[in-house]
Amino acid sequence: MTVRRVGVTAPLGFMAAGVHCGIKKSSILDLALIVSSEPGPIAGVFTMNRLPAAPVQLDRLHLRGGVGQAVIINSGNANACTGPQGIADAEEMTTLVARRLGVKPQTVFVGSTGVIGQPLPMARVRKGIPSLMARARRSGGQEAARAILTTDLKPKEAAASARIGGRTITIGGMAKGSGMIHPDMATMLAYVTTDAAIERSALQQILASSANRSFNCISVDGDTSTNDTVLCLANGLAGNAVIKLHTPEAKQFERLLHTVCFALAMKVCRDGEGVTKVVRLVVTGAKTEKDAKQVAKTVGTSSLVKTALFGEDANWGRIVAALGRAGVSIDPHHIALAFDDVLMVRSGMGLGRRAEQRISRVVRRKEFTITLDLGQGSSEAQLWTTDLSYEYVKINASYRS
Amino acid sequence: MTVRRVGVTAPLGFMAAGVHCGIKKSSILDLALIVSSEPGPIAGVFTMNRLPAAPVQLDRLHLRGGVGQAVIINSGNANACTGPQGIADAEEMTTLVARRLGVKPQTVFVGSTGVIGQPLPMARVRKGIPSLMARARRSGGQEAARAILTTDLKPKEAAASARIGGRTITIGGMAKGSGMIHPDMATMLAYVTTDAAIERSALQQILASSANRSFNCISVDGDTSTNDTVLCLANGLAGNAVIKLHTPEAKQFERLLHTVCFALAMKVCRDGEGVTKVVRLVVTGAKTEKDAKQVAKTVGTSSLVKTALFGEDANWGRIVAALGRAGVSIDPHHIALAFDDVLMVRSGMGLGRRAEQRISRVVRRKEFTITLDLGQGSSEAQLWTTDLSYEYVKINASYRS
Repeated sequence: MTVRRVGVTAPLGFMAAGVHCGIKKSSILDLALIVSSEPGPIAGVFTMNRLPAAPVQLDRLHLRGGVGQAVIINSGNANACTGPQGIADAEEMTTLVARRLGVKPQTVFVGSTGVIGQPLPMARVRKGIPSLMARARRSGGQEAARAILTTDLKPKEAAASARIGGRTITIGGMAKGSGMIHPDMATMLAYVTTDAAIERSALQQILASSANRSFNCISVDGDTSTNDTVLCLANGLAGNAVIKLHTPEAKQFERLLHTVCFALAMKVCRDGEGVTKVVRLVVTGAKTEKDAKQVAKTVGTSSLVKTALFGEDANWGRIVAALGRAGVSIDPHHIALAFDDVLMVRSGMGLGRRAEQRISRVVRRKEFTITLDLGQGSSEAQLWTTDLSYEYVKINASYRS
Repeated sequence: MTVRRVGVTAPLGFMAAGVHCGIKKSSILDLALIVSSEPGPIAGVFTMNRLPAAPVQLDRLHLRGGVGQAVIINSGNANACTGPQGIADAEEMTTLVARRLGVKPQTVFVGSTGVIGQPLPMARVRKGIPSLMARARRSGGQEAARAILTTDLKPKEAAASARIGGRTITIGGMAKGSGMIHPDMATMLAYVTTDAAIERSALQQILASSANRSFNCISVDGDTSTNDTVLCLANGLAGNAVIKLHTPEAKQFERLLHTVCFALAMKVCRDGEGVTKVVRLVVTGAKTEKDAKQVAKTVGTSSLVKTALFGEDANWGRIVAALGRAGVSIDPHHIALAFDDVLMVRSGMGLGRRAEQRISRVVRRKEFTITLDLGQGSSEAQLWTTDLSYEYVKINASYRS
């Protein structure tokens, strides 16, 4: 497992670039490109928001063709709530890239992140595309990763390689985001590339599963963006036999993809402004996985729980109170709650001041695990959540000023 | 409409008091009593939390008898997650009061607010009850209102009178709370008294309806407490003909009760630490009332929306993004959004920079209305929400330290 490059240009055949075209002020990068030398299968996972932004609508349409070769992404403007003009602008972005590459527009995808409800400054985007495409190169991954950021502190990249089917397969990715952490527009964007040869349906299924166990397990202030997008392009240049579903190779590929997606998701959690703690919240003993997820989401997004985490206050009562309003049926006499390895609640009752003193030490750690056992079944869920700090309020209160 | 007293002792026949029994540090009041000279019908509305505190469990039981004469409330300890001992402690509180009054324990109700998961210091409570009861007097309303507070800045009282059925009927109340505002344990307690003669079933139905349009319409950070309670005692001393459901008198009584409940709810919103703004969120044009409420709740509890309110940032895109994730079906082309009388979004599209400049002035007001029209039907809902400030984080991060 050797990786020379980290990020979207780590796999064979991928080039990338980032430029400043003028959507953002000063000379901050605001336009990114990923391009593969060969077309290949593409998979995508998008926001569940009922008001998806124009680029999400267009990507969903393009995804029907199943083939991808390039992605263009702008930051500083979300192209959301922009009506028919927004769709036309997203289309023009893909068409301009496709024309210069000599490929079909349907194989070009588009992403946007930034302020909602303002028209894209297309004159600037149009002018920026030629220089963006001219800069595309094998070493351009980090530049592209920087060009998709909004309030992020640093670019987020990951890559991993493994021998699969006798060939070295590499997966790379970049992300920006999201929610609690990059409350921008709460947008999470992730672009993953691979030189694996893989069936399109296998790629889609494996990407959806990986996204569920990585990007969909980080909190997040409950605000699902209009623009959330995860795309994965595969160009087949590794020369492996095409990976099909339900094979050992598909399992290996899934592990590799999960490594990259999870690394990106954790970077999104940790690197955010305002975040001082990342807490893994594990819900066990639920009747159903849906119940477990519902509890994890309710506890993990509670402002009372999150401010207590920030204050390093071992206020476990807030976790129990949040559990009680999660909308799942609870038997109070079977609840257990632990902070790392310290049990605080057993059979629904607090274990007193000594236990509280011990969990007071746990909550001072930068990262720790809270385990909430419902004692009703064997279903589980986990969620990585963050604290709610002064800095979070500051960033979000003054985002546009 | 003349009111001499404001609060729970405004109606005829009610006495109240507050003392420091030692649950809280120093000499802060922590035990309150309301007592009526006559027993009468009592109505109650409680938390939907699946892990209700011991006093809520006991009150629900006592409410089956339908008759009330006194309420004892402590602050500083929620008596929640305290198991069988918690129930026994709540029972003992009602029994001690009942014995001294010479009434049945089932006519005495109990409330608690404060830290979760610690046993009530019953030795102190026991010792405090005799002096509490000795202090009960017609002018004791405000003292009681102070004794139920936790992080509240000031006591919250209201009263109103009206001629109903040829007699002057008075309703008084006190509250503490909650959610976003008094994030304590997010507990909202409200106790309402009246000298009206009214059927018990009418009282229950009218209280439930009033609570829905007042206490259940204020936000709140989404955290439903284990202890939320609204109780209403009626002693009949006004001498009116007993009010029955579906009569003009019931309507008049409902208006009067709503006046008091709404006034208390607004005090809860406005008086809270950390709150710099109270915003009325009106959702119109929904297919169903359930949809309207769901949208109001999602938008009104969004951390991104609330921090923007604090920052006086006219970031209307966050409202639209929250609408999109509310889980109700949305037609983007029919959405309209206004800040007071300034339209910002029509047919799903932003109306540009000039409109934004105008709403920038609206969001600087201390109180204003955001109207979100879904254009799909005629159902409506409203919610009073607050901003999310540094102060909120500070209070909640350091609540127990």
